[in-house]
Amino acid sequence: MKSKDILVSPLRRIDTEGGDVMHGLKTTDNGYQGFGEAYFSWVSHGSVKAWKCHSEMTMNLIVPVGRVKFVFQLEDINGVNEFRSEIIGVDRYMRISVPPGIWFGFKGMDSQNLILNLASIAHDPNEVKRLGLNDMDYIWR
Amino acid sequence: MKSKDILVSPLRRIDTEGGDVMHGLKTTDNGYQGFGEAYFSWVSHGSVKAWKCHSEMTMNLIVPVGRVKFVFQLEDINGVNEFRSEIIGVDRYMRISVPPGIWFGFKGMDSQNLILNLASIAHDPNEVKRLGLNDMDYIWR
Repeated sequence: MKSKDILVSPLRRIDTEGGDVMHGLKTTDNGYQGFGEAYFSWVSHGSVKAWKCHSEMTMNLIVPVGRVKFVFQLEDINGVNEFRSEIIGVDRYMRISVPPGIWFGFKGMDSQNLILNLASIAHDPNEVKRLGLNDMDYIWR
Repeated sequence: MKSKDILVSPLRRIDTEGGDVMHGLKTTDNGYQGFGEAYFSWVSHGSVKAWKCHSEMTMNLIVPVGRVKFVFQLEDINGVNEFRSEIIGVDRYMRISVPPGIWFGFKGMDSQNLILNLASIAHDPNEVKRLGLNDMDYIWR
């Protein structure tokens, strides 16, 4: 994983009698940068949580319930900021690996939406920067 | 964590505008024995998945959606087998840490039930023993 590059990896959903098994993350997967903490975030329909930027944490984001739109502020090859969005969830079951240093936000798209973050370090408020929803030139429709 | 002892730990659910944050597992938590793989299992209402026993994996089990009844075969102080059950889920949000060497099964109690296993090693079919549902003297009501 290059610095400042996010990685979107397909995940297997294994059809199983009585309830499917869904892959998440292995230490041998691309994007794995160590384990520090796992936690869930619910995001309700239409709610936006933005903006945050971790200075140390690599996030590995999975959406086992619903659909979530993630937006990342990335630099293009000329160093100009641009926004990249990815919708993941039940019908596009993928993992997004996000290295530190990237501003991001997310929005709940279905009635109930659940994010699992398999984070490379434990939560530390000192390594999180925050901006308000309107501090970036991105329109959350 | 003593060998052959399961550990049931309360987890925080943090009331957050737009969707709650729910703790899972940190490396500093009791019951953490390393990270090898994270995966989800759905279990439908009334379905039972039993019995399995890992020879190497420590499981850390969390139920963010629904309610799941886990049953563990443990030995009492006289070496006699007994069964211990724990129902965890949204209304009893706890983590169960299960060391290797314990036979277990589980049953979905609500309409939709989701288990996250934060496992100490990656899936390896050679370290899993299996028995049929009726191979143990436990009645899944």
